[in-house]
Amino acid sequence: MSVNIKPLADRVLVKPAAAEEKTASGIIIPDTAKEKPQRGEVVAVGNGKKDEPLTVKVGDTVLYGKYAGTEITVDGSDYLIMRESDVFAIL
Amino acid sequence: MSVNIKPLADRVLVKPAAAEEKTASGIIIPDTAKEKPQRGEVVAVGNGKKDEPLTVKVGDTVLYGKYAGTEITVDGSDYLIMRESDVFAIL
Amino acid sequence: MSVNIKPLADRVLVKPAAAEEKTASGIIIPDTAKEKPQRGEVVAVGNGKKDEPLTVKVGDTVLYGKYAGTEITVDGSDYLIMRESDVFAIL
Amino acid sequence: MSVNIKPLADRVLVKPAAAEEKTASGIIIPDTAKEKPQRGEVVAVGNGKKDEPLTVKVGDTVLYGKYAGTEITVDGSDYLIMRESDVFAIL
Amino acid sequence: MSVNIKPLADRVLVKPAAAEEKTASGIIIPDTAKEKPQRGEVVAVGNGKKDEPLTVKVGDTVLYGKYAGTEITVDGSDYLIMRESDVFAIL
Amino acid sequence: MSVNIKPLADRVLVKPAAAEEKTASGIIIPDTAKEKPQRGEVVAVGNGKKDEPLTVKVGDTVLYGKYAGTEITVDGSDYLIMRESDVFAIL
Amino acid sequence: MSVNIKPLADRVLVKPAAAEEKTASGIIIPDTAKEKPQRGEVVAVGNGKKDEPLTVKVGDTVLYGKYAGTEITVDGSDYLIMRESDVFAIL
Repeated sequence: MSVNIKPLADRVLVKPAAAEEKTASGIIIPDTAKEKPQRGEVVAVGNGKKDEPLTVKVGDTVLYGKYAGTEITVDGSDYLIMRESDVFAIL
Repeated sequence: MSVNIKPLADRVLVKPAAAEEKTASGIIIPDTAKEKPQRGEVVAVGNGKKDEPLTVKVGDTVLYGKYAGTEITVDGSDYLIMRESDVFAIL
Repeated sequence: MSVNIKPLADRVLVKPAAAEEKTASGIIIPDTAKEKPQRGEVVAVGNGKKDEPLTVKVGDTVLYGKYAGTEITVDGSDYLIMRESDVFAIL
Repeated sequence: MSVNIKPLADRVLVKPAAAEEKTASGIIIPDTAKEKPQRGEVVAVGNGKKDEPLTVKVGDTVLYGKYAGTEITVDGSDYLIMRESDVFAIL
Repeated sequence: MSVNIKPLADRVLVKPAAAEEKTASGIIIPDTAKEKPQRGEVVAVGNGKKDEPLTVKVGDTVLYGKYAGTEITVDGSDYLIMRESDVFAIL
Repeated sequence: MSVNIKPLADRVLVKPAAAEEKTASGIIIPDTAKEKPQRGEVVAVGNGKKDEPLTVKVGDTVLYGKYAGTEITVDGSDYLIMRESDVFAIL
Repeated sequence: MSVNIKPLADRVLVKPAAAEEKTASGIIIPDTAKEKPQRGEVVAVGNGKKDEPLTVKVGDTVLYGKYAGTEITVDGSDYLIMRESDVFAIL
């Protein structure tokens, strides 16, 4: 996965993981009821802030809060751009 | 207990202790009335912030506020991910 | 008095003083009407923050605001855990 | 006037001046209508914050805002404990 | 004009200029409709904060916001005590 | 244009440009409907804050937000006094 | 594209990209329903803040939040002036 975007400062660009189409019991959920994924792959990172380089790297799978970041669409794909401080952990 | 998660910066991953199934007087409480536990075991820690390493270590039993952290599910288990400043004390 | 708890950073653990059972005029107050004590004994202290060691020591009797701290129960006893900045004065 | 209290950090203990019992025109005001005094005598001071010693000294008469500080009772007398930044001026 | 008050830190004591009794067209305004003056003379100044001495001096005529400061009465005269940052300019 | 006012710290005094009396299509707008100008000339500047001299100079034409600053009247003329951070750009 | 404006400090001047006149399915949208563009070209930049030069350069195509910046009109063209921290990424 490669995108031609350079996030600024402490921002990272994340490709959210596809939401599960089925519940644990096998029932197919219509599109609007699907929970937003909170897991994604980092596809681009900024240069960090002065004296604070980023920890997250391109390719990392990260966990983030349900309402983290701003949705942007690049070349027809949906991404989230968020500050690294919105990232909880690397899987 | 071992999980493959690396919390970022000053965050720690906590496995909440199981809530008591019985009250002191021996009455069994149905699941929805159980108080959320405020005690847990640290299972992963971040690297701290610049110039501020973490005090809490993996394996510590910690006390934290009732509404501290964000619930995340990893491999079917529930954890809380919180900032170390949400941890009150080590038991 | 000794408890096996290590408060983090600038937090202190306080054992609130027992509330007075009688008013000045000698009337016995039922339990629910008793004012919460604002005086207590320090039973454990954290290591302070970077470059800011704590002033309060174990054994000090302290005054604190009516709504300071979080109540926690350890071995059946009730304590308050609060930041040192919530402590007004040492008696 | 002497009290056995040590305020913490940048806090000062003030003995509010008695409110005037009469208005300028000589009418005696019942107790509940008296304005709270905003003038008092400093009876104890903290050690200040790191690199910021206090300016106010024990014995100073100070002016402070109407809602400054917290009321505490020590040995039957009422005092106000406030931060030095709540003190406007020394008379 | 001289008052025996020492403002603390970055505070200044200002004697508000008397409000104009007449509008430009010469109509006399009753007392309650007069706009509060926003111009006054500095009568006492604090020592400034650490590393930040004050710019305003006793005797300066200053402009300040309509709601700046706290009114205090000293020896029967009304003053405003405000932080220097509430002063806009020196005339 | 010259005024005898010295703004404090990071404040600048701006003479707002006269609002356009006509719309692009030539209709004359009555006084109350005129948009407030967001362009003005700097007529006085402060000395800046510690270690942060001002960028704006007397004589600069500046753009600022619609609600920036406080209106003050000096010698019958209306000015705006604002912080330099309320100035967007120099024309 | 060249404009004679010098943004102050950490501000950048952006020429928003023209909004798409047609939806993906080819339906022409009337003017008021068009989404505001979130993509634009940088036409002028400030000098940055003390010790923090800007990353964005004139000519960069940038992404920014839907509500970022303030609209200003210069020589009949509409621009947005925003802080660099409102810019998410460079395309």
